[in-house]
Amino acid sequence: MKTIGYATDSPTSALEPFNFERRDPRPEDVVIDILYCGICHSDIHSARNEWGWTQYPFVPGHEIVGRVSAVGDKVGQFKPGDLVGVGCLVDSCRHCESCEEGLEQYCENGFTGTYGGEDKIGGTPHPFTFGGYSNQITVDERFVLRIPENLDPAAAAPLLCAGITTYSPLRHWKVGPGQKVGVIGLGGLGHMGVKFAHAMGAHVVMITTSPEKGADAQKLGADEVLLSTDEVAMQAAQNSFDFLLNTIPVGHNVDPYMALLKRDTTMVIVGAVEALTRVDGIPFIFRRRSLAGSLIGGLPETQEMLDFCGEHDITCDIETIVIKDVNTAYDRTVKGDVKYRFVIDMASLQPEAA
Amino acid sequence: MKTIGYATDSPTSALEPFNFERRDPRPEDVVIDILYCGICHSDIHSARNEWGWTQYPFVPGHEIVGRVSAVGDKVGQFKPGDLVGVGCLVDSCRHCESCEEGLEQYCENGFTGTYGGEDKIGGTPHPFTFGGYSNQITVDERFVLRIPENLDPAAAAPLLCAGITTYSPLRHWKVGPGQKVGVIGLGGLGHMGVKFAHAMGAHVVMITTSPEKGADAQKLGADEVLLSTDEVAMQAAQNSFDFLLNTIPVGHNVDPYMALLKRDTTMVIVGAVEALTRVDGIPFIFRRRSLAGSLIGGLPETQEMLDFCGEHDITCDIETIVIKDVNTAYDRTVKGDVKYRFVIDMASLQPEAA
Repeated sequence: MKTIGYATDSPTSALEPFNFERRDPRPEDVVIDILYCGICHSDIHSARNEWGWTQYPFVPGHEIVGRVSAVGDKVGQFKPGDLVGVGCLVDSCRHCESCEEGLEQYCENGFTGTYGGEDKIGGTPHPFTFGGYSNQITVDERFVLRIPENLDPAAAAPLLCAGITTYSPLRHWKVGPGQKVGVIGLGGLGHMGVKFAHAMGAHVVMITTSPEKGADAQKLGADEVLLSTDEVAMQAAQNSFDFLLNTIPVGHNVDPYMALLKRDTTMVIVGAVEALTRVDGIPFIFRRRSLAGSLIGGLPETQEMLDFCGEHDITCDIETIVIKDVNTAYDRTVKGDVKYRFVIDMASLQPEAA
Repeated sequence: MKTIGYATDSPTSALEPFNFERRDPRPEDVVIDILYCGICHSDIHSARNEWGWTQYPFVPGHEIVGRVSAVGDKVGQFKPGDLVGVGCLVDSCRHCESCEEGLEQYCENGFTGTYGGEDKIGGTPHPFTFGGYSNQITVDERFVLRIPENLDPAAAAPLLCAGITTYSPLRHWKVGPGQKVGVIGLGGLGHMGVKFAHAMGAHVVMITTSPEKGADAQKLGADEVLLSTDEVAMQAAQNSFDFLLNTIPVGHNVDPYMALLKRDTTMVIVGAVEALTRVDGIPFIFRRRSLAGSLIGGLPETQEMLDFCGEHDITCDIETIVIKDVNTAYDRTVKGDVKYRFVIDMASLQPEAA
């Protein structure tokens, strides 16, 4: 299936129109006309090969929303016209313990990323997967999600990565009413963390260096703001949190945050895929606190998250762009100049590339 | 009550005989004739003011075993002649959430350490508590433990710190049969971790840099040895452990150990009361692993541990010394030249100081 998208050829090249092929649908496949695709910071790290694994040409995009255009014979859950989504993974081994538990993101044999993953299914001339900055995609039914029809499809797109990345740890660590929950950092992830923790009934505290971001977080559902630059306030807040969701996307000193936790509670990092700059043993030992990590979510939990969003009318705050502005959007994302996610309107792709 | 002990006057002075006073027993107090006191590495850090909080004169010792010599009117659990122990704490606020749960080691108002703590009970001219390198001690009944009579009292002494420090996290994180448990480091703590994890039914792996220590650990109950210097073996052991007890007493790179854990499991640090030298976010995020800490244990759990030791006939491997050799023992402990704990025979104190 001839497909058009946007790709980059090297770490320093701009994204430009690119023609490639998707596989014809197998019996278990769903073909999706892509309506919207979010811009995740991981797209940028990958396009620029900042993590060292990128294969070129590279088509980013793993926050995909579209409508089903065709299904294979064995597809039971979807039919043409359905509003669906695809997130960060399009395949996994399906037989390891993690896959059997529906935690495909932790597949012990390595899941296939929606972009840049070794394509074990094949059926195209391309050895690596191409992401959602494109007009269509063929995906195995198991890795396709239903998007509630009451949600704005553009604003739902980033739920597939930013949404599930924050929802999953809040659920796994059982955040709920009666708990004081801190969300550290207000970007694409943090703003969803605030919305979810609020919807789950927790008392939500936005922890940020910026009073302006604090004010924004209160509009999103935060009950309180704690400025991490205010030493007196940080001291007063020690031992008071039941859970911390840490969305800081770079290495940092975790000690001041660990000290905020009550005994026997946990801070979960979801953004820092690099070395933390300082981690003292004392805050761990003297209050039996934990530091943990969490990666996106499995397919069943991602569907649960989307259904939760449908019930609670939760979507992302987005800025919609046409695809020719994607390179500018990358630069603005790197500067943090977006509230809180860019989403590409894929209707802008076809005329552009034609 | 006139008491004799060994104290140091400065970070660089040797321990020498020292006369001081213990309080007369209040109705809820137990007076103990000290038979044995273990030498914990914390004693040395404190005597040398390496943690910056030491008040001089300083009498170390928080691994105390002795016999009750007198009890106050309200004491219900102990009578003269009973074999008892005192560990790292002799008082706490008794009304915070942690104290009410029997987790006095996490007292939110600060527990009183057996040595060097501000003595809130009083009754002596000394503002700070003096530890167990002495002939007797007066302790509130709540902070006194029963030592099973079938245990060698000298070899039981280090259970009060090294024992409970390793038993508590193994219990809290529910170590048991069918689990592969790694104990990192073989010293006073590690050797007890191996014994306890083995007695709890786990498959125990000693993780050490030293083949010699590995062989020693197998004598103590380890089923396997993993040399952390063997990169091939470390690689092969990734994602295979259900729990790691990390007894390394200094800051270190945790990344190679975190990688050993299965998804959703935990490494607990009990020794490193300082900054870890490297902690990467990736091993946390990509397997939802946790790093936690744990501090000694509360009084109920310490009693449980001692009873467990009585049932399973577990004590520490020790080298008994006379008190005049304490300074040499300190130097040997710092060099790691002890299997695995020095214990002072307090019968050697009285003639010496007289």
